[in-house]
Amino acid sequence: MTDPVVNRLIEALRVLPGIGQKSAQRMAFHLLQHDRNGAVRLAQSLLQAVDEIGHCERCHTFSRDRICATCLDPTRDARMLCVVETPADQAALERTGSYRGLYFVLAGALSPLDGVGMHDIGVTRLLERANDGVVDEVVLATNFTAEGEVTAHVLSEQLRQRGVRVTRLARGVPVGSELEYVDLGTIAHALMDRR
Amino acid sequence: MTDPVVNRLIEALRVLPGIGQKSAQRMAFHLLQHDRNGAVRLAQSLLQAVDEIGHCERCHTFSRDRICATCLDPTRDARMLCVVETPADQAALERTGSYRGLYFVLAGALSPLDGVGMHDIGVTRLLERANDGVVDEVVLATNFTAEGEVTAHVLSEQLRQRGVRVTRLARGVPVGSELEYVDLGTIAHALMDRR
Ligand SMILES: [Zn+2]
Ligand SMILES: [Zn+2]
Repeated sequence: MTDPVVNRLIEALRVLPGIGQKSAQRMAFHLLQHDRNGAVRLAQSLLQAVDEIGHCERCHTFSRDRICATCLDPTRDARMLCVVETPADQAALERTGSYRGLYFVLAGALSPLDGVGMHDIGVTRLLERANDGVVDEVVLATNFTAEGEVTAHVLSEQLRQRGVRVTRLARGVPVGSELEYVDLGTIAHALMDRR
Repeated sequence: MTDPVVNRLIEALRVLPGIGQKSAQRMAFHLLQHDRNGAVRLAQSLLQAVDEIGHCERCHTFSRDRICATCLDPTRDARMLCVVETPADQAALERTGSYRGLYFVLAGALSPLDGVGMHDIGVTRLLERANDGVVDEVVLATNFTAEGEVTAHVLSEQLRQRGVRVTRLARGVPVGSELEYVDLGTIAHALMDRR
């Protein structure tokens, strides 16, 4: 019953992760009814971001410039290189304020079953980078999921073969959690890695 | 730490209802990493909808044309006029396939505490429309929330004063639900309105 132009907007909104038909309709109707200025601003921001944002040649995070501000920051410790799966993971680490080294952003995690191999996520460039004579320690900060762990394992082997020092974020009990509610695998790891 | 253009996109995504900072960031990163074509399509759809979609002069639903297709449809029963709060509610009624009359879409519900009165939601135009000599019955299909009920009550009084026949969607137990899990107010109404 709805106008084809409205339907096209509803369809287009479904490119957003986690947005199904129903949420997309609610969003379209909300924008048209209550926030047309916001809708125009969103459209302009999307076009500008797609047009201007590429990837940093050095760390592959999102960047408007050839080399991103983090990579160019002379106050950061270039001897440490933290490997993450996505720019979102990098942003989470930055928010902690407790890491002052540089980053290497993979294009996701290894997923052999989906045909995502070492080359697809940028492992070759990481190995070159880690062997540039400046990097002293690679901190693996891939996710603690099955795919993230496999990726960390493979990277760890490849890097160690090349004589690079490799560490991994500690597994353990999340800050603020009660043991009773923490899953057993996590407790087991926290026991093993106790210090 | 993120690029200002990416941050602007994240901010812009927050005009979407129900989307906080974290979801907006996830959406922005997803589009830039995995679906730039989808992002451009979304931007174009937003601009086209804002540009082309207005409100039907007769029923006030979203429409590209001065009068919408539903209002112009000669097979619909012009003697019945169903009043809803939003185009989304109209869409829900249309999906049932069990209503063949026309519609009048209010601009939301009355909300005196927020300063939303009869004129703001289009009650004056509804009263004119209901007295056009064609409409025989007004079906109130505002929401069964506090504000929707107040709106239905006020409309009902105003319309009846003008000699218009008014009905309200039936309250009752939702199809497929087990009584044990239905809230008591609903059961009480279903008892009162038993037939
Ligand atoms: Zn960089
Ligand atoms: Zn209409």
